[in-house]
Amino acid sequence: MFEYLVNLPAKILFGYGKLSSLGEEAQRLGKKVFLVYDPFLFGTPVISAVKDALKERRMAAVDFDDISPNPRHSVIDKAVRRCVEEGCDLVVALGGGSAIDSAKAVAVVAANGGSTWDYTERENAFVARPSKGKLPLIAVPTTAGTGTEATPYAVINNTELHFKATIINEVCFPTISIVDPSLMATMPPRLTALTGIDAFAHAFESYINRNATPFSEMVSLEAIRLFAESIETCVKTPNDKVARGKMALASTLGGIAIAHSSTTLPHAIGQSLSGLTDAPHGGSIAACIQEIVRWTLPCGKEKFVKVTEMLEPSVAGRSIDEKAALLPEILDGIFTRILFGKRETMSGYGLTEDKIDLLADTVLTCYMMDCKGHPKMQDRADIVGIIRACM
Amino acid sequence: MFEYLVNLPAKILFGYGKLSSLGEEAQRLGKKVFLVYDPFLFGTPVISAVKDALKERRMAAVDFDDISPNPRHSVIDKAVRRCVEEGCDLVVALGGGSAIDSAKAVAVVAANGGSTWDYTERENAFVARPSKGKLPLIAVPTTAGTGTEATPYAVINNTELHFKATIINEVCFPTISIVDPSLMATMPPRLTALTGIDAFAHAFESYINRNATPFSEMVSLEAIRLFAESIETCVKTPNDKVARGKMALASTLGGIAIAHSSTTLPHAIGQSLSGLTDAPHGGSIAACIQEIVRWTLPCGKEKFVKVTEMLEPSVAGRSIDEKAALLPEILDGIFTRILFGKRETMSGYGLTEDKIDLLADTVLTCYMMDCKGHPKMQDRADIVGIIRACM
Repeated sequence: MFEYLVNLPAKILFGYGKLSSLGEEAQRLGKKVFLVYDPFLFGTPVISAVKDALKERRMAAVDFDDISPNPRHSVIDKAVRRCVEEGCDLVVALGGGSAIDSAKAVAVVAANGGSTWDYTERENAFVARPSKGKLPLIAVPTTAGTGTEATPYAVINNTELHFKATIINEVCFPTISIVDPSLMATMPPRLTALTGIDAFAHAFESYINRNATPFSEMVSLEAIRLFAESIETCVKTPNDKVARGKMALASTLGGIAIAHSSTTLPHAIGQSLSGLTDAPHGGSIAACIQEIVRWTLPCGKEKFVKVTEMLEPSVAGRSIDEKAALLPEILDGIFTRILFGKRETMSGYGLTEDKIDLLADTVLTCYMMDCKGHPKMQDRADIVGIIRACM
Repeated sequence: MFEYLVNLPAKILFGYGKLSSLGEEAQRLGKKVFLVYDPFLFGTPVISAVKDALKERRMAAVDFDDISPNPRHSVIDKAVRRCVEEGCDLVVALGGGSAIDSAKAVAVVAANGGSTWDYTERENAFVARPSKGKLPLIAVPTTAGTGTEATPYAVINNTELHFKATIINEVCFPTISIVDPSLMATMPPRLTALTGIDAFAHAFESYINRNATPFSEMVSLEAIRLFAESIETCVKTPNDKVARGKMALASTLGGIAIAHSSTTLPHAIGQSLSGLTDAPHGGSIAACIQEIVRWTLPCGKEKFVKVTEMLEPSVAGRSIDEKAALLPEILDGIFTRILFGKRETMSGYGLTEDKIDLLADTVLTCYMMDCKGHPKMQDRADIVGIIRACM
């Protein structure tokens, strides 16, 4: 997966109004659509517009909106059966990461058979590999965060085992992604902030990753620059078109970055927390990323300095060590401002003392690749220590 | 083609030693290789290594090295017949832009039938469109300039009509590109300089292009930064591995940039000159790019300023207008240094007064898209004026 400087088979349409291309793109790819969307989109003008566009082209559509945050393997298996029974030959997904990741899994499992969970990557377990490609997939994000429109990942939650794992395969790239910032204008401030933190985390973690390449670093830094320029405006002036456009782009670039060099420890711990407590993804990252930077220093110092300079240009003139050491505070400051003073903590998301060991085990079972990419090596005790500091 | 923010279906391997992956990649894609390479590579260790790698995997290879600069449609037609007769199912190309563009055309025409020239884009002429994809193609550049390893273009020279035209189609992206800077270490200084100028021109022209996108601009600027950091070292210290690596990356990024927002007037005029006089591609660009910047100003000023700042950081403190106006001089300075004082001119490449009108006609017939992307609109008289100033 990561041996390539560039491996990006998704075609990405980007810009205000681009949703209007959906009908034309869909028509090139199939005849009967399995339409996956977040339930809060039900009955909105966006879904009507999509359905009208498909109808105009005499394309049938089967609806599926049984999507929850941290999408569940059992629900996806149900969706796969429906998709196959209905004979759909194209999947279209609208929504946040949960809807699009569910749709990615549907497109893969419908074409390859079996059950969804088997395709997720887990240490020391049987992992099924898709050999028959996937149904073509059009992804339309309505949040600026996951970047899943530009990645080969689908994160799946197993509510029986209480952990999340990820399908990692080139076939998980959408065939076409349509990123239209106008769909993001109605996000409430807290969702804007939490998804924005996720976008930042993708750019940041891929940048500091040991597997970073000159291509992924370029993309990461541009995403961080755009995040720094626009996240506070998006939260405080939700209708600011320029800022929303920048955050939409930051999110897509964050996706491209992790597609090429993956995430590190904040995602390993954050995803594991969400699997255990159903914490929203962005919140689980906000609960640990500053602490992880603190723990990691002075490893990776040079890159932390670069990020500090982009987030807070007023540090110019300070020493390298000072700049690096300032990063956790700067992140705290930004997160506090965009979350209106609310501080995300692991205990706040329902993590109890007696579950800390289980959480650490999940990190090491399901997120080894992220752990190995982190600039400072960690053992189980380190992870437990970080989690304690985030309570 | 250019409606997408990202459309980059080539997988790109990058780095010292990556040529060793060729056998494995080839084995995934086919059984019998049509091996296209520049004649100067005949008998070199690179070709032996490639043949050995294919042999180890029991893959047969048919050689084709009848490649000249500005590759000819009739020669490519001959190659297509050979490729089809031999039953090759994979094309592998090693060399500069001429070898790789020839191989792209072979891969497309072998799969779709007909003759090569018909697939090139020309105003008011029949253009054949490939409907049957192409033979899989592995491209291995040995110069740092064309970026063709990352583009949907194949430039073809028609020596009967005395002009060049381009196949522009998604199928022209290589399936896999292997960019190994160690293959570029033996380029003589003049070739390093001229191909380097071509790489810069790709980044520069895509950056100033009216069709530039936030993605292509990001890639263009990174390529310009790498060019500024490394081209003089590559010319003066040919074995400097770091500098060669940077120029190899600049070239690939330049390719990615023009794949997304294309070139402008310097390529329109430069390509036309090469079609008429067989001038080397980089030289034909070096003969006109500064003059075109002079003619274009003050249009596109903001972007010229950014390029000036990257090429010559010592301009900090000057006014916007001064910085923009300095760009032609700065380019002159760099080109003079890397070409050891030799100045490229159109008359030096054999353009005579009586051919200026014909050259202008070719620009307007074959390169309309590039002309339209240029930040300042131009008529026939403008183009004639620019050409005269470049004699």
